[in-house]
Formats: sequence, structure tokens, C-alpha cells
Amino acid sequence: MRPVYFEDGELKLIDQTLLPTQEIVRGYTDYRDVADAIVTMIVRGAPAIGVTAGYAVYLASKEFEGLDAEAYQKNMQAACDTLRGTRPTAVNLFWAIDRMSGIFKGEPDADPKAMSEKLKAEADAICEEDIAMCKAMGKAGAALIKPGSTILTHCNAGALATADYGTALGVIRAAQEAGKNIQVYADETRPLLQGARLTAYELHKDNIPVTLITDNMAGWMMHQGKIDAVVVGADRITRNGDVANKIGTFSVSVLAKAHHIPFYVAAPTSTIDFSMFSGKDITIEQRDPSEVGHFAGVQTAPDGINFENPAFDVTPHDNVSAIITEQGVIFPPFAPGILNLKH
Amino acid sequence: MRPVYFEDGELKLIDQTLLPTQEIVRGYTDYRDVADAIVTMIVRGAPAIGVTAGYAVYLASKEFEGLDAEAYQKNMQAACDTLRGTRPTAVNLFWAIDRMSGIFKGEPDADPKAMSEKLKAEADAICEEDIAMCKAMGKAGAALIKPGSTILTHCNAGALATADYGTALGVIRAAQEAGKNIQVYADETRPLLQGARLTAYELHKDNIPVTLITDNMAGWMMHQGKIDAVVVGADRITRNGDVANKIGTFSVSVLAKAHHIPFYVAAPTSTIDFSMFSGKDITIEQRDPSEVGHFAGVQTAPDGINFENPAFDVTPHDNVSAIITEQGVIFPPFAPGILNLKH
Repeated sequence: MRPVYFEDGELKLIDQTLLPTQEIVRGYTDYRDVADAIVTMIVRGAPAIGVTAGYAVYLASKEFEGLDAEAYQKNMQAACDTLRGTRPTAVNLFWAIDRMSGIFKGEPDADPKAMSEKLKAEADAICEEDIAMCKAMGKAGAALIKPGSTILTHCNAGALATADYGTALGVIRAAQEAGKNIQVYADETRPLLQGARLTAYELHKDNIPVTLITDNMAGWMMHQGKIDAVVVGADRITRNGDVANKIGTFSVSVLAKAHHIPFYVAAPTSTIDFSMFSGKDITIEQRDPSEVGHFAGVQTAPDGINFENPAFDVTPHDNVSAIITEQGVIFPPFAPGILNLKH
Repeated sequence: MRPVYFEDGELKLIDQTLLPTQEIVRGYTDYRDVADAIVTMIVRGAPAIGVTAGYAVYLASKEFEGLDAEAYQKNMQAACDTLRGTRPTAVNLFWAIDRMSGIFKGEPDADPKAMSEKLKAEADAICEEDIAMCKAMGKAGAALIKPGSTILTHCNAGALATADYGTALGVIRAAQEAGKNIQVYADETRPLLQGARLTAYELHKDNIPVTLITDNMAGWMMHQGKIDAVVVGADRITRNGDVANKIGTFSVSVLAKAHHIPFYVAAPTSTIDFSMFSGKDITIEQRDPSEVGHFAGVQTAPDGINFENPAFDVTPHDNVSAIITEQGVIFPPFAPGILNLKH
């Protein structure tokens, strides 16, 4: 299941706001529309956003390649700024844009048309590397999963969050492919229900047994001995191993620790922010309060009250049993293992 | 706000499935319809169910009072059995039915018409005692709340869950009335959203500042120091202080303990099941899986997957800081304090 790919001159995105009842692929040729698609979460998941942003920079280049080199550079920088302004927390977004803009800024006098070709090749490379990374991460992580395990996951760190295969769900897919006979409990993940809509959808499509629970059931399932391990993705990891991920991940980590259940984070090296020493430095995106007081257009709360709607929380490294990357598994203490990663 | 009361020959129930966007009062004269209203959660909350069941037994008596004493007794027992079959976990239901049936079974030869009058008086007494209990509980519990506190609550243990005033929200109301300047964070409480629909509604109506969060945000709010105390209700408490309450309560208790935040349970003595030594004996009601796969009537999950939908969980007494009853506050170890209660 590929949520983002380039075909016939268009960036194609599965509209994830319509899953699980409709699977619609939308085509994009204007980077501004792609920026909107990131904001409205037609595409979501840190690695998928990175791949999408790579192709969006290429689409901008196609739009501006008729200009002279100076105007081209100026417009390209503005396009990158627009794309950077879409979601504040996903580090892969900035990483992909920096990688793309490094190409055109590195050759300010180059012919814009030739630059477009280079940028297309770079965006393709980001996409292909993402898939290769997910497969490598899956293989590394699967070694941690005991045969017959039931794994809890939160949100969607699946194929739908990457270019294909997934990070947390890549580990689950690799364990399944290794014949480990596993099953999955998926938190529905309010407010946007990525667990119900996306994780349950893609696992069921791959014939991996999946049981859906509301977020507030996770602790009770652990208490009953139904969960053997937790595997989640990450939106940003700092140098000490603190993990920003979908709101609710922190609670799951505390519950897992209280029940002596291993808590694994699967994320590519591009998710690690080497400029940040700890999770205290991470800016948490606050989303529209109406997401909490509504669902699918139905009002669930009275008018006039207050809401909180942080998109992410930060799980302290003390609650993390291991970080699974495409370069291998890192165990605590995380700081030296993270600094040893090639990046 | 009175969700259950008797007026003009009818049992009146606020239809809580329509809150917070509509406040509709329905009238009942047939105990079978009342049984349906309990099953479909038009009325919910253990004490409110107890009061409702009391009036339902009276409605049955009005229906059968034309029969001879023997046929009356037989039909009344059958009606009580129907009412007992509505919800398996709420002990107040059985407590109220036992109290009502004790009246008619104690005088098997009495004139049914005269018995109806006695049963009406008994149902009224259950209702009035419930309100008095909530006020006494609120007063006892308010003493535990420090001025300026922010209190987290889960589900709805409010006026809407009782005859009036509430248990957990009774403590909050009493603290507010004592000028303690408190505010409340309410978990939305999936799958049926009693926190969003009911708790936020009744607190906002009473001008108590309320902030709504999704269930998976509670831990993160605690981690940020935004929560000073947790107050919840209970559906059943066993002799050792284990607490059955709405699914998700257990997770909140673990999170509160991990953050050294006091976790208080407010419940009338009628909620205590003196026949059970520990929470291990409690039967957990499993509700329709479609509640988890849908949100406010909208399908959120793909067809063909598995679901869990326990209505309740059991919080071990080790996670409970105090139990607030109408007879006063009980601190750990709970067993002797619970045995000292008048019942």
C-alpha cells in the first residue's frame, strides 16, 4: 500500500481522510495544493510527509523552470518556506526540504530545467530510500518480537505513514513474514482515529489479525496480560532518546512500564533531531479544538467550554526499551547509540 | 439537573443519548419500556439506574394491582427479573430492586392496591435518600480538595448519573460552593462519550470551568503538572476497596499513581458490594463492538476486524487514595473502614 508516489507527471496521494470506507487517490501538480494536503492530513505520518515534501519541491521546480536562475532561486526558496510552514513537529518534513533545497542552492547558476531533473531524481531517491529503510528497520525490529506475541500499537506508523511498508507496522509485517504468528491490538487514537481508520485498515488488508480498542482500554488490556509488547513510531527523537509521537503515546509508555511490558519505538534515522538534546526543546503543535469537540461533523460536546488539543506528546527515554532504526536496534542508554548513527 | 423523577403518574427520564445538543424529557408508564431505557442508556450512572429501577417496580405494581395477591406476587417477581437483566455490573440496580421487592415479598397476602402505595413511597425514599447522600458525600469530599485545584474526572458521575447533584461531580460542586475556585478537566470517555456529552454539559451549565480532553491526553496533562487531583465515581466497590468503574478509569489510576496525584473515588454506600471480597469477582459487561467501530454514528473502522468493548474495568485498591461516601471519607487500608460502614 503506497500512500505517496509519482506517476504520469503527478504526485499521487491516497486521501487518508476518507479511509477506511473509501480509498481514493488524488493527483497533484501544484506544490501549494500539496502544502494544503499536508495541513489537512490527506497525507500524514512523518516519513510520508517527508517523501511528499520532496516531490512538492520538484513540482515547484517544474512551475518555475521557465524563469531565469535568480528568479528561480527566489521562487524556489519561497515554495520551500510555504512547505516548511505546514506542520511544525515532523522533523522529516524539514529534513526532506533541506535535502531538496541543498541541491538547487548548491548550484545557484544552474539551468532551472536541468535542475528540475536533478530534483526529480532526488525526490525519487528519498522515496526509494524510505522504502528500503522501512524494510531494514522491520528486519532489525522483528528480532525483538517473540513468536506468538500480541503487540499494541498507537496511531498509524504503517505503510500509510511512509512511502510503503511502515515503521512500527514494518516491524510487525517483518515479524509476520518471519512466521512469528503475531496479532495486533490497535488503539483507535483520538481525535483523528488514525488507529481505527488506517492501522486497522492496512493490517486487515495484509491478513494480520487486528483487534481495535478505544485508547482508554490499553491499560486494562495490559493488566489482563493480553499485551506482550508495544511498538510505536515517532515524529521526532532527540539525542537523549526522548520521543515525540502522537498524543497518547506518553500514556501508553507509562502504562507499559507499570506492567513491565517492553515499549519499542521504530523510526528511521531521519526522525532523529541531532540538534536537540532532549524532548524539552520540542515544540508541540496545538491543533484546532473542534477536533476534540466533534467527530466527522457530529458535535460531541456543548458549546462554550474549553479544549486542549496537542497533536503530540513526548515520551521520556526512561520509558523506552529500545529504538529500532534502519541501522539497527539501539538500547539504553540511548545517547551514545544515537551519536554513533550515520547521518 | 434531575435526570430521573416521578411526576403526573409518569416516570420522567432526560434522554441522555441526545445530550449535549438536545435536552428531551421522556415519560414512562410501562416497566418494560423503562428496562429498555436502562439497556439503551437513555438513563445511565449506577445511582440513577437504582432510582429508575425503584420507580419501574412501582410502575409494574400499578400494572398488576388489579390481580389477586398470588398472581400479583408472581408478576411482580417476573418484572423484577426483567429489570435485573438489564445491566450486569451496576450494583445499585440490584440493591434498589431487592429493596423494592423486599416490601411486596414481605407481605405476600397484602392488597396489591395498598402495596402500590407503599412501593411508591419506597421509590420516593430511594430517590430522596440519593440526593441527600450526594450532598453529604460532596461535603465530605470537598474537604480533600485544595483551593485553586484542577481536578480530572472520567466518564460522568454527575447529577445526570444520580437523582441530582452527583457523586464525583457532587464533590466538585461542593468544593465550588465552598469557594475553592476549582476547575475541571473532563476525559471525553470513549466509546459513548459521557465525559464530552454529559460531564462537560452539566458543569458548563453550573458555571464550573471545564476543559475537555480526549482520553489519551490525561497522562500528558498530568506530566505537565496541570492536574492536582482525580475524582471519579464507581459502579461497584468490593470489600477490599477495589473499584469497578467506566472503562479507562484503571488507566487513569495508574497514570495518577505514576505522577503522585491523589486518586479519589466518590460513591454512596449502596455502591459497595459487601458480598464480594475483591475486584476479581466482578463480572465485566461486554457491550456491542459497534460502539468501538463507530463514533457518533459514523463508521470509523474497516469491516471484518476484531473489537474489545468492556464497559468497565477494575481499579485495584492500591491505586485509590481515598473513598468518599455519604458516611465520610475512608482511607487505606480500606477493608476495616468499609466494614465499619452502616448498611
